[in-house]
Amino acid sequence: MASRPATVTVEAVRPRGRGAAVPLQKGAQTRALILEAALAQASRAGLEGLSIGTLADVIGMSKSGVFAHFGSREELQIAVVAEYHARFEQEVFFPALREPRGLPRLRALFERWVRQVSVELESGCIYISGAVEFDDRPGPVRDALVSMVKAWHAALAKAIGIARDEGHLAFDIDVEQILFELHGLILSLHHDDRFMRIPGALQRARNGFERVIASSITPLGQQAPQAVPAVRRKAR
Amino acid sequence: MASRPATVTVEAVRPRGRGAAVPLQKGAQTRALILEAALAQASRAGLEGLSIGTLADVIGMSKSGVFAHFGSREELQIAVVAEYHARFEQEVFFPALREPRGLPRLRALFERWVRQVSVELESGCIYISGAVEFDDRPGPVRDALVSMVKAWHAALAKAIGIARDEGHLAFDIDVEQILFELHGLILSLHHDDRFMRIPGALQRARNGFERVIASSITPLGQQAPQAVPAVRRKAR
Repeated sequence: MASRPATVTVEAVRPRGRGAAVPLQKGAQTRALILEAALAQASRAGLEGLSIGTLADVIGMSKSGVFAHFGSREELQIAVVAEYHARFEQEVFFPALREPRGLPRLRALFERWVRQVSVELESGCIYISGAVEFDDRPGPVRDALVSMVKAWHAALAKAIGIARDEGHLAFDIDVEQILFELHGLILSLHHDDRFMRIPGALQRARNGFERVIASSITPLGQQAPQAVPAVRRKAR
Repeated sequence: MASRPATVTVEAVRPRGRGAAVPLQKGAQTRALILEAALAQASRAGLEGLSIGTLADVIGMSKSGVFAHFGSREELQIAVVAEYHARFEQEVFFPALREPRGLPRLRALFERWVRQVSVELESGCIYISGAVEFDDRPGPVRDALVSMVKAWHAALAKAIGIARDEGHLAFDIDVEQILFELHGLILSLHHDDRFMRIPGALQRARNGFERVIASSITPLGQQAPQAVPAVRRKAR
Protein backbone atom coordinates (compact mmCIF):
# COMPACT_ATOMS: atom_id res chain seq x y z
CA MET A 1 0.00 0.00 0.00
CA ALA A 2 1.36 3.41 -0.97
CA SER A 3 2.53 5.43 2.00
CA ARG A 4 0.97 8.77 1.30
CA PRO A 5 -0.02 11.07 4.16
CA ALA A 6 -3.58 10.72 5.39
CA THR A 7 -5.54 13.97 5.40
CA VAL A 8 -9.32 14.25 5.48
CA THR A 9 -9.65 10.63 6.50
CA VAL A 10 -7.56 11.08 9.60
CA GLU A 11 -9.80 13.89 10.80
CA ALA A 12 -12.86 11.80 10.06
CA VAL A 13 -11.80 9.07 12.46
CA ARG A 14 -10.40 11.38 15.15
CA PRO A 15 -11.81 10.07 18.40
CA ARG A 16 -14.27 12.48 19.94
CA GLY A 17 -13.16 14.36 23.01
CA ARG A 18 -9.45 13.66 22.51
CA GLY A 19 -6.54 15.70 21.27
CA ALA A 20 -7.96 19.03 22.44
CA ALA A 21 -4.85 19.56 24.61
CA VAL A 22 -2.41 19.50 21.62
CA PRO A 23 -2.41 22.37 19.09
CA LEU A 24 -4.60 21.28 16.17
CA GLN A 25 -2.13 21.52 13.27
CA LYS A 26 0.76 19.73 14.91
CA GLY A 27 -1.57 17.32 16.66
CA ALA A 28 -3.17 16.25 13.39
CA GLN A 29 0.25 15.69 11.82
CA THR A 30 1.45 13.55 14.69
CA ARG A 31 -1.78 11.62 14.66
CA ALA A 32 -1.38 10.93 10.94
CA LEU A 33 2.19 9.77 11.53
CA ILE A 34 1.12 7.34 14.25
CA LEU A 35 -1.73 6.05 12.11
CA GLU A 36 0.59 5.54 9.14
CA ALA A 37 3.00 3.47 11.24
CA ALA A 38 0.11 1.58 12.87
CA LEU A 39 -1.34 0.71 9.46
CA ALA A 40 2.02 -0.66 8.31
CA GLN A 41 2.39 -2.68 11.51
CA ALA A 42 -1.17 -4.06 11.34
CA SER A 43 -0.70 -5.03 7.68
CA ARG A 44 2.28 -7.17 8.62
CA ALA A 45 1.33 -8.49 12.05
CA GLY A 46 -2.46 -8.24 12.01
CA LEU A 47 -4.64 -5.91 14.05
CA GLU A 48 -4.00 -8.07 17.10
CA GLY A 49 -0.28 -7.67 16.46
CA LEU A 50 -0.55 -3.90 17.04
CA SER A 51 1.55 -2.87 20.02
CA ILE A 52 1.62 0.71 21.27
CA GLY A 53 5.05 0.05 22.79
CA THR A 54 6.62 -1.10 19.52
CA LEU A 55 4.83 1.66 17.65
CA ALA A 56 6.21 4.32 20.01
CA ASP A 57 9.73 2.94 19.45
CA VAL A 58 9.32 2.98 15.66
CA ILE A 59 8.25 6.64 15.54
CA GLY A 60 10.54 7.70 18.36
CA MET A 61 7.78 8.81 20.73
CA SER A 62 6.94 7.91 24.28
CA LYS A 63 4.07 5.52 24.89
CA SER A 64 2.20 8.29 26.68
CA GLY A 65 2.70 10.44 23.57
CA VAL A 66 0.87 7.81 21.52
CA PHE A 67 -1.83 7.52 24.19
CA ALA A 68 -2.41 11.30 23.97
CA HIS A 69 -3.73 10.70 20.43
CA PHE A 70 -5.33 7.28 20.82
CA GLY A 71 -6.72 6.63 24.27
CA SER A 72 -6.36 2.86 24.01
CA ARG A 73 -5.04 0.13 21.78
CA GLU A 74 -8.62 -0.65 20.80
CA GLU A 75 -9.20 2.94 19.72
CA LEU A 76 -6.07 2.74 17.58
CA GLN A 77 -7.21 -0.55 16.03
CA ILE A 78 -10.54 0.99 15.08
CA ALA A 79 -8.80 4.05 13.60
CA VAL A 80 -6.57 1.72 11.55
CA VAL A 81 -9.63 -0.10 10.19
CA ALA A 82 -11.26 3.21 9.24
CA GLU A 83 -8.08 4.50 7.63
CA TYR A 84 -7.61 1.27 5.70
CA HIS A 85 -11.18 1.47 4.49
CA ALA A 86 -10.79 5.10 3.37
CA ARG A 87 -7.70 4.19 1.35
CA PHE A 88 -9.37 1.13 -0.11
CA GLU A 89 -12.22 3.35 -1.30
CA GLN A 90 -9.73 5.80 -2.82
CA GLU A 91 -7.85 3.07 -4.68
CA VAL A 92 -10.66 0.74 -5.67
CA PHE A 93 -14.12 2.22 -5.38
CA PHE A 94 -14.03 5.87 -6.45
CA PRO A 95 -11.88 5.42 -9.60
CA ALA A 96 -14.19 2.63 -10.81
CA LEU A 97 -17.17 4.98 -10.55
CA ARG A 98 -15.72 6.89 -13.51
CA GLU A 99 -16.41 3.90 -15.76
CA PRO A 100 -19.78 3.68 -17.56
CA ARG A 101 -22.64 2.16 -15.53
CA GLY A 102 -23.12 -1.57 -15.93
CA LEU A 103 -20.60 -4.22 -16.81
CA PRO A 104 -17.70 -1.80 -17.51
CA ARG A 105 -18.00 -0.41 -13.97
CA LEU A 106 -18.38 -3.85 -12.40
CA ARG A 107 -15.36 -5.11 -14.33
CA ALA A 108 -13.36 -2.06 -13.18
CA LEU A 109 -14.34 -2.66 -9.56
CA PHE A 110 -13.23 -6.27 -9.72
CA GLU A 111 -10.03 -5.50 -11.62
CA ARG A 112 -9.06 -2.79 -9.12
CA TRP A 113 -9.90 -5.09 -6.24
CA VAL A 114 -7.67 -7.80 -7.71
CA ARG A 115 -4.87 -5.30 -8.17
CA GLN A 116 -5.30 -3.98 -4.64
CA VAL A 117 -5.02 -7.49 -3.20
CA SER A 118 -1.99 -8.19 -5.36
CA VAL A 119 -0.29 -5.01 -4.11
CA GLU A 120 -1.08 -6.14 -0.58
CA LEU A 121 0.28 -9.63 -1.13
CA GLU A 122 3.60 -8.40 0.21
CA SER A 123 2.13 -6.89 3.36
CA GLY A 124 -1.21 -8.60 3.94
CA CYS A 125 -4.80 -7.43 3.71
CA ILE A 126 -6.29 -6.14 6.94
CA TYR A 127 -9.80 -7.16 5.89
CA ILE A 128 -8.80 -10.76 5.22
CA SER A 129 -6.55 -11.23 8.24
CA GLY A 130 -8.97 -9.25 10.42
CA ALA A 131 -11.84 -11.54 9.43
CA VAL A 132 -9.89 -14.50 10.79
CA GLU A 133 -8.51 -12.69 13.86
CA PHE A 134 -11.88 -11.34 14.97
CA ASP A 135 -14.33 -13.94 13.75
CA ASP A 136 -15.18 -15.00 17.28
CA ARG A 137 -14.09 -11.97 19.29
CA PRO A 138 -17.09 -9.71 19.80
CA GLY A 139 -16.42 -6.04 20.45
CA PRO A 140 -15.98 -2.69 18.74
CA VAL A 141 -12.99 -3.72 16.57
CA ARG A 142 -14.91 -6.63 15.12
CA ASP A 143 -17.96 -4.36 14.67
CA ALA A 144 -15.84 -1.82 12.78
CA LEU A 145 -14.40 -4.51 10.51
CA VAL A 146 -17.79 -6.06 9.79
CA SER A 147 -19.39 -2.70 9.02
CA MET A 148 -16.57 -1.76 6.59
CA VAL A 149 -16.77 -5.11 4.79
CA LYS A 150 -20.56 -4.75 4.66
CA ALA A 151 -20.22 -1.31 3.08
CA TRP A 152 -17.90 -2.70 0.42
CA HIS A 153 -20.17 -5.66 -0.26
CA ALA A 154 -23.15 -3.32 -0.56
CA ALA A 155 -21.24 -1.22 -3.12
CA LEU A 156 -20.44 -4.34 -5.14
CA ALA A 157 -24.02 -5.61 -4.91
CA LYS A 158 -25.21 -2.24 -6.17
CA ALA A 159 -22.82 -2.40 -9.14
CA ILE A 160 -24.04 -5.91 -10.00
CA GLY A 161 -27.65 -4.69 -9.78
CA ILE A 162 -26.87 -1.76 -12.09
CA ALA A 163 -25.29 -4.16 -14.61
CA ARG A 164 -28.58 -6.05 -14.57
CA ASP A 165 -30.67 -2.86 -14.83
CA GLU A 166 -28.57 -1.66 -17.77
CA GLY A 167 -29.40 -4.94 -19.52
CA HIS A 168 -25.79 -6.20 -19.42
CA LEU A 169 -26.64 -9.11 -17.13
CA ALA A 170 -29.81 -11.24 -17.25
CA PHE A 171 -32.84 -9.78 -15.45
CA ASP A 172 -33.17 -12.83 -13.19
CA ILE A 173 -29.64 -13.00 -11.77
CA ASP A 174 -29.09 -13.66 -8.07
CA VAL A 175 -27.04 -10.62 -7.05
CA GLU A 176 -25.92 -12.07 -3.70
CA GLN A 177 -24.83 -15.30 -5.38
CA ILE A 178 -22.63 -13.43 -7.86
CA LEU A 179 -21.16 -11.34 -5.06
CA PHE A 180 -20.43 -14.50 -3.05
CA GLU A 181 -18.58 -16.05 -5.99
CA LEU A 182 -16.57 -12.92 -6.86
CA HIS A 183 -15.49 -12.54 -3.25
CA GLY A 184 -14.43 -16.19 -3.26
CA LEU A 185 -12.12 -15.51 -6.20
CA ILE A 186 -10.42 -12.72 -4.26
CA LEU A 187 -10.01 -14.90 -1.16
CA SER A 188 -8.61 -17.72 -3.28
CA LEU A 189 -6.15 -15.29 -4.91
CA HIS A 190 -4.98 -14.09 -1.51
CA HIS A 191 -4.63 -17.66 -0.21
CA ASP A 192 -2.83 -19.15 -3.21
CA ASP A 193 -0.48 -16.28 -3.80
CA ARG A 194 0.36 -15.11 -0.30
CA PHE A 195 0.23 -18.38 1.60
CA MET A 196 0.87 -21.11 -0.99
CA ARG A 197 3.07 -19.02 -3.33
CA ILE A 198 1.39 -20.67 -6.33
CA PRO A 199 2.10 -18.72 -9.53
CA GLY A 200 -0.74 -17.66 -11.85
CA ALA A 201 -3.35 -16.89 -9.17
CA LEU A 202 -3.87 -13.35 -10.48
CA GLN A 203 -4.85 -14.62 -13.92
CA ARG A 204 -7.08 -17.30 -12.38
CA ALA A 205 -9.00 -14.65 -10.44
CA ARG A 206 -9.57 -12.76 -13.70
CA ASN A 207 -10.59 -15.90 -15.58
CA GLY A 208 -12.97 -16.68 -12.73
CA PHE A 209 -14.59 -13.28 -13.05
CA GLU A 210 -15.19 -13.84 -16.76
CA ARG A 211 -16.68 -17.25 -16.07
CA VAL A 212 -19.03 -15.95 -13.35
CA ILE A 213 -20.18 -13.19 -15.68
CA ALA A 214 -20.41 -15.50 -18.73
CA SER A 215 -23.26 -17.44 -17.18
CA SER A 216 -25.44 -14.29 -16.91
CA ILE A 217 -24.23 -11.96 -19.66
CA THR A 218 -26.71 -10.70 -22.27
CA PRO A 219 -25.99 -9.86 -25.93
CA LEU A 220 -26.06 -6.19 -24.90
CA GLY A 221 -23.53 -6.93 -22.14
CA GLN A 222 -21.25 -8.61 -24.65
CA GLN A 223 -21.14 -5.36 -26.62
CA ALA A 224 -20.17 -3.32 -23.57
CA PRO A 225 -16.51 -2.17 -23.50
CA GLN A 226 -14.41 -5.05 -22.15
CA ALA A 227 -10.91 -4.29 -21.03
CA VAL A 228 -10.87 -0.55 -20.43
CA PRO A 229 -9.64 -0.53 -16.84
CA ALA A 230 -6.97 -3.18 -17.34
CA VAL A 231 -5.45 -1.45 -20.38
CA ARG A 232 -5.68 1.98 -18.85
CA ARG A 233 -3.90 0.84 -15.75
CA LYS A 234 -1.10 -0.87 -17.63
CA ALA A 235 -0.28 2.46 -19.25
CA ARG A 236 0.17 4.20 -15.90
CA MET B 1 -15.21 -31.66 15.05
CA ALA B 2 -16.08 -34.99 16.69
CA SER B 3 -13.95 -35.75 19.71
CA ARG B 4 -13.00 -39.35 19.07
CA PRO B 5 -9.69 -40.75 20.28
CA ALA B 6 -6.83 -40.57 17.81
CA THR B 7 -5.11 -43.90 17.21
CA VAL B 8 -2.90 -44.69 14.25
CA THR B 9 -2.55 -41.01 13.44
CA VAL B 10 -1.14 -40.16 16.82
CA GLU B 11 1.57 -42.77 16.42
CA ALA B 12 2.30 -41.53 12.93
CA VAL B 13 3.17 -38.04 14.12
CA ARG B 14 5.00 -39.13 17.28
CA PRO B 15 8.21 -37.12 17.30
CA ARG B 16 11.25 -39.27 16.73
CA GLY B 17 13.43 -39.96 19.76
CA ARG B 18 10.80 -38.86 22.28
CA GLY B 19 8.52 -40.71 24.62
CA ALA B 20 10.85 -43.67 25.11
CA ALA B 21 10.98 -42.98 28.86
CA VAL B 22 7.19 -43.45 29.36
CA PRO B 23 5.59 -46.91 28.98
CA LEU B 24 4.19 -47.13 25.46
CA GLN B 25 0.52 -47.88 26.17
CA LYS B 26 -0.04 -45.23 28.81
CA GLY B 27 2.26 -42.79 27.02
CA ALA B 28 0.26 -43.08 23.80
CA GLN B 29 -2.98 -42.48 25.67
CA THR B 30 -1.66 -39.39 27.40
CA ARG B 31 -0.25 -38.11 24.16
CA ALA B 32 -3.64 -38.57 22.46
CA LEU B 33 -5.31 -36.71 25.33
CA ILE B 34 -2.92 -33.75 25.03
CA LEU B 35 -3.35 -33.68 21.26
CA GLU B 36 -7.13 -33.74 21.57
CA ALA B 37 -7.08 -30.74 23.92
CA ALA B 38 -4.50 -28.95 21.78
CA LEU B 39 -6.63 -29.43 18.67
CA ALA B 40 -9.65 -27.94 20.44
CA GLN B 41 -7.59 -24.99 21.67
CA ALA B 42 -6.03 -24.35 18.25
CA SER B 43 -9.44 -24.51 16.56
CA ARG B 44 -10.67 -21.71 18.79
CA ALA B 45 -7.58 -19.57 19.29
CA GLY B 46 -5.49 -20.47 16.25
CA LEU B 47 -2.21 -22.36 16.15
CA GLU B 48 -0.45 -19.30 17.51
CA GLY B 49 -2.95 -19.24 20.36
CA LEU B 50 -1.69 -22.63 21.57
CA SER B 51 -0.24 -22.33 25.06
CA ILE B 52 1.37 -25.27 26.83
CA GLY B 53 0.62 -23.61 30.17
CA THR B 54 -3.12 -23.29 29.50
CA LEU B 55 -3.18 -26.75 27.99
CA ALA B 56 -1.56 -28.28 31.07
CA ASP B 57 -4.18 -26.58 33.25
CA VAL B 58 -7.05 -27.87 31.10
CA ILE B 59 -5.92 -31.50 31.27
CA GLY B 60 -4.71 -31.26 34.86
CA MET B 61 -1.07 -32.01 34.07
CA SER B 62 2.15 -30.22 34.86
CA LYS B 63 3.83 -28.25 32.06
CA SER B 64 6.79 -30.61 32.25
CA GLY B 65 4.34 -33.51 31.79
CA VAL B 66 3.22 -31.98 28.50
CA PHE B 67 6.81 -31.33 27.49
CA ALA B 68 7.61 -35.02 28.05
CA HIS B 69 5.36 -35.77 25.07
CA PHE B 70 5.96 -32.72 22.91
CA GLY B 71 9.42 -31.27 23.28
CA SER B 72 8.36 -27.76 22.27
CA ARG B 73 5.34 -25.66 21.42
CA GLU B 74 6.38 -25.86 17.77
CA GLU B 75 6.46 -29.65 17.88
CA LEU B 76 2.95 -29.60 19.35
CA GLN B 77 1.73 -27.19 16.66
CA ILE B 78 3.04 -29.50 13.93
CA ALA B 79 1.41 -32.52 15.59
CA VAL B 80 -1.89 -30.60 15.70
CA VAL B 81 -1.64 -29.84 11.98
CA ALA B 82 -0.95 -33.51 11.21
CA GLU B 83 -3.79 -34.67 13.44
CA TYR B 84 -6.18 -32.15 11.89
CA HIS B 85 -5.18 -33.34 8.43
CA ALA B 86 -5.69 -37.00 9.33
CA ARG B 87 -9.20 -36.26 10.61
CA PHE B 88 -10.01 -34.12 7.58
CA GLU B 89 -9.04 -37.06 5.36
CA GLN B 90 -11.22 -39.40 7.41
CA GLU B 91 -14.24 -37.10 7.22
CA VAL B 92 -13.91 -35.72 3.71
CA PHE B 93 -11.53 -37.60 1.49
CA PHE B 94 -11.82 -41.33 2.18
CA PRO B 95 -15.64 -41.53 2.27
CA ALA B 96 -15.85 -39.68 -1.07
CA LEU B 97 -13.59 -42.30 -2.67
CA ARG B 98 -16.47 -44.76 -2.32
CA GLU B 99 -18.46 -42.78 -4.90
CA PRO B 100 -18.12 -43.70 -8.59
CA ARG B 101 -15.15 -42.14 -10.40
CA GLY B 102 -15.85 -38.84 -12.15
CA LEU B 103 -18.42 -36.22 -11.34
CA PRO B 104 -20.15 -38.21 -8.55
CA ARG B 105 -16.87 -38.46 -6.65
CA LEU B 106 -15.96 -34.81 -7.26
CA ARG B 107 -19.40 -33.72 -6.10
CA ALA B 108 -19.05 -35.89 -2.98
CA LEU B 109 -15.65 -34.36 -2.22
CA PHE B 110 -17.02 -30.84 -2.49
CA GLU B 111 -20.18 -31.61 -0.56
CA ARG B 112 -18.22 -33.22 2.27
CA TRP B 113 -15.80 -30.31 2.27
CA VAL B 114 -18.70 -27.86 2.56
CA ARG B 115 -20.17 -29.86 5.39
CA GLN B 116 -16.83 -30.08 7.15
CA VAL B 117 -16.41 -26.30 6.99
CA SER B 118 -19.97 -25.80 8.21
CA VAL B 119 -19.32 -28.10 11.19
CA GLU B 120 -16.20 -26.08 11.91
CA LEU B 121 -18.00 -22.75 11.67
CA GLU B 122 -18.51 -22.92 15.42
CA SER B 123 -14.87 -23.59 16.21
CA GLY B 124 -12.86 -22.39 13.22
CA CYS B 125 -10.87 -24.17 10.53
CA ILE B 126 -7.18 -24.63 11.28
CA TYR B 127 -6.28 -24.59 7.58
CA ILE B 128 -8.01 -21.26 6.96
CA SER B 129 -6.85 -19.50 10.12
CA GLY B 130 -3.40 -21.09 9.82
CA ALA B 131 -3.02 -19.75 6.28
CA VAL B 132 -3.48 -16.23 7.62
CA GLU B 133 -1.41 -16.72 10.79
CA PHE B 134 1.57 -18.23 9.00
CA ASP B 135 1.46 -16.57 5.58
CA ASP B 136 4.65 -14.63 6.29
CA ARG B 137 6.21 -16.67 9.09
CA PRO B 138 8.64 -19.13 7.58
CA GLY B 139 9.45 -22.23 9.56
CA PRO B 140 8.39 -25.83 10.13
CA VAL B 141 4.80 -25.05 11.21
CA ARG B 142 4.18 -23.11 8.03
CA ASP B 143 5.86 -25.89 6.03
CA ALA B 144 3.60 -28.48 7.63
CA LEU B 145 0.47 -26.42 6.88
CA VAL B 146 1.49 -25.79 3.27
CA SER B 147 2.31 -29.44 2.63
CA MET B 148 -1.07 -30.57 4.06
CA VAL B 149 -3.00 -28.04 1.98
CA LYS B 150 -0.98 -29.06 -1.07
CA ALA B 151 -1.85 -32.71 -0.49
CA TRP B 152 -5.53 -31.84 -0.31
CA HIS B 153 -5.36 -29.66 -3.41
CA ALA B 154 -3.57 -32.47 -5.26
CA ALA B 155 -6.35 -34.89 -4.29
CA LEU B 156 -8.97 -32.46 -5.59
CA ALA B 157 -7.04 -31.82 -8.79
CA LYS B 158 -6.84 -35.55 -9.33
CA ALA B 159 -10.61 -35.92 -8.86
CA ILE B 160 -11.25 -33.11 -11.37
CA GLY B 161 -8.86 -34.79 -13.85
CA ILE B 162 -10.67 -38.12 -13.41
CA ALA B 163 -14.03 -36.40 -14.08
CA ARG B 164 -12.51 -35.19 -17.35
CA ASP B 165 -11.02 -38.60 -18.19
CA GLU B 166 -14.38 -40.26 -17.53
CA GLY B 167 -15.92 -37.89 -20.05
CA HIS B 168 -18.05 -36.06 -17.46
CA LEU B 169 -16.21 -32.77 -17.94
CA ALA B 170 -14.93 -31.37 -21.24
CA PHE B 171 -11.54 -32.67 -22.41
CA ASP B 172 -10.03 -29.15 -22.53
CA ILE B 173 -10.85 -27.98 -18.99
CA ASP B 174 -8.22 -26.12 -16.96
CA VAL B 175 -7.99 -28.31 -13.85
CA GLU B 176 -6.11 -25.71 -11.75
CA GLN B 177 -8.64 -23.03 -12.67
CA ILE B 178 -11.57 -25.18 -11.51
CA LEU B 179 -9.71 -26.02 -8.30
CA PHE B 180 -9.02 -22.30 -7.71
CA GLU B 181 -12.70 -21.46 -8.10
CA LEU B 182 -13.98 -24.31 -5.92
CA HIS B 183 -11.56 -23.36 -3.16
CA GLY B 184 -12.78 -19.77 -3.42
CA LEU B 185 -16.34 -20.93 -2.75
CA ILE B 186 -15.20 -22.65 0.45
CA LEU B 187 -13.27 -19.57 1.61
CA SER B 188 -16.26 -17.36 0.84
CA LEU B 189 -18.51 -19.71 2.81
CA HIS B 190 -16.17 -19.59 5.80
CA HIS B 191 -15.90 -15.79 5.61
CA ASP B 192 -19.58 -15.01 5.16
CA ASP B 193 -20.87 -17.48 7.69
CA ARG B 194 -18.28 -17.34 10.45
CA PHE B 195 -17.21 -13.70 10.24
CA MET B 196 -20.15 -11.86 8.66
CA ARG B 197 -22.92 -14.17 9.96
CA ILE B 198 -24.74 -13.83 6.63
CA PRO B 199 -27.41 -16.53 6.27
CA GLY B 200 -27.57 -18.73 3.17
CA ALA B 201 -23.82 -19.07 2.56
CA LEU B 202 -24.00 -22.87 2.59
CA GLN B 203 -26.49 -22.92 -0.26
CA ARG B 204 -24.46 -20.31 -2.17
CA ALA B 205 -21.37 -22.51 -1.99
CA ARG B 206 -23.40 -25.40 -3.44
CA ASN B 207 -24.93 -23.21 -6.16
CA GLY B 208 -21.42 -21.99 -6.96
CA PHE B 209 -20.20 -25.56 -7.41
CA GLU B 210 -23.00 -26.29 -9.86
CA ARG B 211 -22.19 -23.12 -11.80
CA VAL B 212 -18.47 -23.89 -12.01
CA ILE B 213 -19.28 -27.40 -13.22
CA ALA B 214 -22.03 -26.23 -15.60
CA SER B 215 -19.52 -24.41 -17.78
CA SER B 216 -17.57 -27.65 -18.46
CA ILE B 217 -20.08 -30.47 -18.07
CA THR B 218 -20.65 -32.90 -20.96
CA PRO B 219 -23.89 -34.69 -21.89
CA LEU B 220 -22.39 -37.81 -20.31
CA GLY B 221 -21.63 -35.83 -17.14
CA GLN B 222 -25.23 -34.66 -17.02
CA GLN B 223 -26.35 -38.27 -16.87
CA ALA B 224 -24.03 -39.06 -13.95
CA PRO B 225 -25.76 -39.49 -10.57
CA GLN B 226 -26.33 -36.04 -9.05
CA ALA B 227 -27.15 -35.80 -5.41
CA VAL B 228 -26.08 -39.13 -3.96
CA PRO B 229 -23.79 -37.90 -1.17
CA ALA B 230 -26.13 -35.14 0.03
CA VAL B 231 -29.11 -37.47 0.28
CA ARG B 232 -27.13 -40.26 1.83
CA ARG B 233 -25.71 -37.98 4.47
CA LYS B 234 -29.10 -36.56 5.42
CA ALA B 235 -30.28 -40.06 6.25
CA ARG B 236 -27.43 -40.67 8.72
